This record gives sequence, structure tokens and C-alpha cells, in this order.
Amino acid sequence: MATLGLIEYADASAEVRAVYDDIMTTRRTDWINNFWKALAHDPATLRRTWESIRQIMAPGALDPLTKELVYLAVSATNQCGYCIASHTASARKAGMTDAMLAELMAVVGMANETNRLSAGYQVEIDDRFKT
Amino acid sequence: MATLGLIEYADASAEVRAVYDDIMTTRRTDWINNFWKALAHDPATLRRTWESIRQIMAPGALDPLTKELVYLAVSATNQCGYCIASHTASARKAGMTDAMLAELMAVVGMANETNRLSAGYQVEIDDRFKT
Amino acid sequence: MATLGLIEYADASAEVRAVYDDIMTTRRTDWINNFWKALAHDPATLRRTWESIRQIMAPGALDPLTKELVYLAVSATNQCGYCIASHTASARKAGMTDAMLAELMAVVGMANETNRLSAGYQVEIDDRFKT
Amino acid sequence: MATLGLIEYADASAEVRAVYDDIMTTRRTDWINNFWKALAHDPATLRRTWESIRQIMAPGALDPLTKELVYLAVSATNQCGYCIASHTASARKAGMTDAMLAELMAVVGMANETNRLSAGYQVEIDDRFKT
Amino acid sequence: MATLGLIEYADASAEVRAVYDDIMTTRRTDWINNFWKALAHDPATLRRTWESIRQIMAPGALDPLTKELVYLAVSATNQCGYCIASHTASARKAGMTDAMLAELMAVVGMANETNRLSAGYQVEIDDRFKT
Amino acid sequence: MATLGLIEYADASAEVRAVYDDIMTTRRTDWINNFWKALAHDPATLRRTWESIRQIMAPGALDPLTKELVYLAVSATNQCGYCIASHTASARKAGMTDAMLAELMAVVGMANETNRLSAGYQVEIDDRFKT
Repeated sequence: MATLGLIEYADASAEVRAVYDDIMTTRRTDWINNFWKALAHDPATLRRTWESIRQIMAPGALDPLTKELVYLAVSATNQCGYCIASHTASARKAGMTDAMLAELMAVVGMANETNRLSAGYQVEIDDRFKT
Repeated sequence: MATLGLIEYADASAEVRAVYDDIMTTRRTDWINNFWKALAHDPATLRRTWESIRQIMAPGALDPLTKELVYLAVSATNQCGYCIASHTASARKAGMTDAMLAELMAVVGMANETNRLSAGYQVEIDDRFKT
Repeated sequence: MATLGLIEYADASAEVRAVYDDIMTTRRTDWINNFWKALAHDPATLRRTWESIRQIMAPGALDPLTKELVYLAVSATNQCGYCIASHTASARKAGMTDAMLAELMAVVGMANETNRLSAGYQVEIDDRFKT
Repeated sequence: MATLGLIEYADASAEVRAVYDDIMTTRRTDWINNFWKALAHDPATLRRTWESIRQIMAPGALDPLTKELVYLAVSATNQCGYCIASHTASARKAGMTDAMLAELMAVVGMANETNRLSAGYQVEIDDRFKT
Repeated sequence: MATLGLIEYADASAEVRAVYDDIMTTRRTDWINNFWKALAHDPATLRRTWESIRQIMAPGALDPLTKELVYLAVSATNQCGYCIASHTASARKAGMTDAMLAELMAVVGMANETNRLSAGYQVEIDDRFKT
Repeated sequence: MATLGLIEYADASAEVRAVYDDIMTTRRTDWINNFWKALAHDPATLRRTWESIRQIMAPGALDPLTKELVYLAVSATNQCGYCIASHTASARKAGMTDAMLAELMAVVGMANETNRLSAGYQVEIDDRFKT
């Protein structure tokens, strides 16, 4: 179970409820996943983390699906079980198909492979790549 | 310098040249970056790695730009200097603007942050996320 | 279950028991956690690891609580489930409050974020930071 | 050089200058390090990152020196060259002595070692550690 | 459960069965582990990954046991639970004894420790090590 | 330069010189690489780290070359520049040929790839792999 436990909506302070409400409204959902309920023990971090994510994941130069794919790619690279589970769900909600998931993981796997090949061979950066 | 040195086109075997030629043709470019020149000491790995990348990075359910963004996201997560430099270049070639780069890094940074928050708080996976 | 199984006190050799005894005495506890029982299959590594930890975690220029917080920070960064669980317990025993845990994780999360932002933007080290 | 270049104070917009000013005031310094100058190409990320760091690194349940030590511990674990250099400087400014640095790194090294031993031996979490 | 589920032999396409058959023949076994059944949703990745592994893990300048030990060392470093479990089994099949496992993990732990000590102390590469 | 500088033999205390002497004798060499000179500011860590490495890297169930290959594999996985450079040199001294290096890196790259594929697909551990 989460180290500090999970704070349910019914037991939450007004400050925490305000964040929960904003999460549900923004995501057009009627529930809160455990990540936020665990963070709720630290309302300042709960609010800051949510506001940062809301800002970062909003449509911009990159669309929301692309951002979710990147989030999942990072989570798989870091072997974060919770994040892979939750962001697989959110990526699917944003439009990720099974075929996209498979291609995404192929890229993630390959990048992790060549990252080590270039480090292991001590390859120096080409002058053309230096900005 | 790369551990085993770099093999230039002029000094390459026919087998290595064939891969170099395919890289240049596929990428519509007239040069080979150091990564491949370093791998060329092991022609089997050179060929297998190139053919895997060519297959994986081809347009499919995900477009080439999205794949390059994911590649760069993984490389930044892994702190791979060579890969960040080379895939920044290839992502730009695939259409990444400065605004996209900035948004990409914001997502990568945030994902790396929340990956540790969920692990550090020992958050358990929600039943709804279990497939 | 641990790959090589767990060696309980009753089944341990004199050499292993000596380490177990020292762990319990030093930590003022009456039980041994699974990590040591798993390592006990390799008495040399058991002894070396314990002696290193006892030396490193002793009060010095840094107090034991600070050291436990750092240990937990590293474990969360590495996504090590066992280590997060065990060092959350030992940090609490050393005095970590819930508020400290929350602030610790906020720092760990932020550091993991900016680590990727500086790598992703390829920021070069300021001359003033070069020693 | 940083991918998008560095934005000096003289060339910065009013929005960016406001962040730079706040950094210098908060840190009681008269210069801005490259990390912020690189982020300045994305004023929203510049502002959000700075405000998060200012909030997180402020004194609270943990003192500023402890937070800087944790930041450096994470950066060393992640092998982030820029972050190690910059946070060694900021930790020293917060009071880190050479002896503290040495003890910090000893803990970081040990934690990284035992993180792999527990994973490699597939040690299961003790019931007592389950919250 | 695996995100896309597992494809059993009885339900597999001819293309997937061909890979399954080759895995069982090459490994002299009569079953397929979950990793391949999960990948089977993407037959191109299934085939490419299997063919790469078969090529890479074949005896060459390094013998199969050494290769399995290295695979396990990487998996422990990355904290990949599935990979540690599966490659512990395959390393044992290739001849890894309990004593070898213990020595392997001791090396893996130590390397992870000194990797952070050299980064944390910002040690510069000796001229003699530059190729 | 290393954070705390490098301590040369001529400037070292008797305690540090004793470790330097043992390193040179054990490794049959007449020089000390920067890693040890950087650690020498903390004689306790210098001694403990050296004695651990000497014990761990000695011939046992695994031969010294295999151990050096594993050390290099971990270092490449962690993207540790200093460690890759220094352990490439020590692995060569222990007998690593160019062909072995190439095969080693192929295994390291592949393991890093499949580590992410199994995590990304959320593959569950087979019952047969549970010990």
C-alpha cells in the first residue's frame, strides 16, 4: 500500500478536493487514481504536480496523444510499473491503438539499445551535430 | 575517440559499404555519422542494427516525426550525450521545430519526476489499470 | 522468492550468525530482514556488504537521518521496490516524519526532472562550475 | 553548446528577465547559470521550473543543505554531468564541506550497490515493511 | 497481465508459430515464455527480436554462459523484474552455478557503486585511457 | 577536474600510499589512475573501495576476464564515461579482444532493449521462473 496511505475524496480537505475536482473536470472522468490520492498527504506537492501536468500535457506544438506516447516511453525506459500501467490507460484514452503501442515499444527498445552501443563504443559526437 | 576507431567509406569492406550506401540512400544524405563508423568493426552488428532501425523508424501506425521525438525522449532520459546530439539533428530533419523540442523536454522532465514520485510513495496500481 | 532462498538464523553457519548478531546489536533490533538472509548464501559478500554499510551509515560529517534520506532518494530514483520499502522503514526509525518524506520526494522528483532538462537541452557546464 | 542557445539578460524579454531577477534575488547572486539561459527559449517552462524549485528547495521539514545533498545524490545516480557540477556548487554554498561530500558519495555509491543486490537476488519485501 | 494479452501456440498465426517453433528448436525446450507471447501481437517485432537474440547469443568470441551472465547483469542494473527472473533461468540452463550467481551480483553491485563514485567526484578520464 | 582534486603519490599520506602501493602491486602496474587519486581525499572510502574491488575481482567461480566484461557491461548500461574508458582498458589487459568487445556490446544493447520491451508490454513473470 502507498507509504502514507490514500486519501479518498470523502476524507479530503477542501484544498485537496479542489485539486481532485479539477482533475476530474479536466480529464472528463469521475474518479481519481491512486497517484493523486497518495500525493494528497502533501497538498502543496499535489497542487504543484497537477498544475504542472495540466499545463505540460495540454495541446500545443505537440498534440496530446504524442505527449502521452512520450510519457509512456519514458516510463518504460525507467521501469516504473505504476506509470506504465497508468499511462498506458491515458494514452489509450488519447487515441493510442494497439498497433501504435507496439510501434512505440519497438522504438523505445531500439533507442535503449543504441544508447548503450554508442556509449559502449565511446563514439564521439560528430562536428555536424554540434550546435 | 571511439574505442575501436572509425571506419571511413574509403577504407570499408564491400559488406560495410553496402550498409553505408543503404543508410545514405534511405536517409537521402551523403555522409555517415560516427555511430555507424564505430559499429563497422563488427559488420554483423552494423547490418543488424541498421536493418532494425530502418524497419522500426519507417512510417506505420506512428509517423516518422513522432518516432524521432520518442527516440530523443528516451535518449534524454538515459543521459546519452551522443544520442541526444544525433537524434536532435534527425528529429529536426523530420520536422521538429524549436517549440516542439521545448514541449517534448517538458514532458520528458515531468515523466521522470512523476516516475519517482509514484515509486517513492510506493503507490499501488489501481484495479482499473490492470488489464 | 529470493533466487537462492533465505537463510534463517536457526539454519545459519557460525560465520553467518556472527554477521546477523552484529546487525541486530548495531541496529538494536531482534530480527533480520530478507536482504541479509538472501545474501547469506555468499558469506563473503554478506560480511563485506554489512561492514561497508555499518561504516558508511555511522554518524560522521553527516548525521544518520540525513544518510537514510539520501539512501531512500537513490532507491526511489532507481525504482528499487525492495530498497524503497526497507529504507522507508529505516529512515523512519532514524527520525523521518511524514512531512520529511513528502519534502524528500518532492526534491527527488524535481532533481530527476531537471537532470533530463539539462541533458535534453544539451546545456554546457558554466566555467564557474568547473573546479 | 545548448541546443537552442543561451539567452543572456541583455537579450531577454521582460517575462524572462522577471524570472532571472527573481533567481538572482532569491539566491543572493548576480549571475544566471546556463541551465536557465537554455530554458529561457520556453518562458512557460522557465517560469514553472523556477517556481517549482524555489518552492521545493525552501526551508521546511528539511533544511536547505539536506535538500541540496539529496539533489546532488540524485544527479550522481543519474550520471548527469551538468547537474553534478551545478549542484556541487550550490550544495557548497549551502554549507556542504569536503567531508560531507565524501560521506554523501559513499552513501550514494552503497545505495546504488545494494539496490542491485536486492534486485539481482530477487529479494521479496518483508511483511514488516509493507505499510 | 500483459497489456495486449498473451498469444498461445494454439491461437497463433502461421507466422507467429514459425517463430515459436524456431525458439523451441533452438533452445531445445517445449514451451514458450510469456515475453514472446506478449510480443506476438506484433509479428514483425517478434521475428526481429528473436532473430537478433538468436544471432547475438550464439557462441562466438564469447561463450553462451558469459553472454547469459552479461544479460543478467544488465537486467539487474536496470531493475527489470521479468528479465531478472527469465535470465536467471536461462543462465542456469547455460551452466551458471549458485556460486557464479553470487560472484556475478557482487561485481554488478560494485560496478554500480563505483560508477556513481566516479561521476559524483567528477573524475576526469586519464590520458592513458583515451584511445 | 575532479571536485576535490587529485592526490598524487608524492603528496599522499602514509595511509593513502599504502593503498596506492597495494593497487600497483596487485595490478602489476606502476601508476595509479585518477579514480583512486580522487577518492584519496577520503582515505576510509579509498581503502574500503579498493579492498572490496580486490576481493570481488579476484579469480573465483568466475574468471577475471568474465568479471571485467561484466563491469564494462554495467558501466555502458549506466552511461558512465569514466568507467567505460577505464574498464575498457582493464578488460583488455585481462584478455578482451576487439571481437569480444563487439559481442559484449551487442549483448548489452540487446538486454537493454528487451528490458524495456518486457516492462513496456507489462509482461508477467512465468510461473516456471518463480523460484
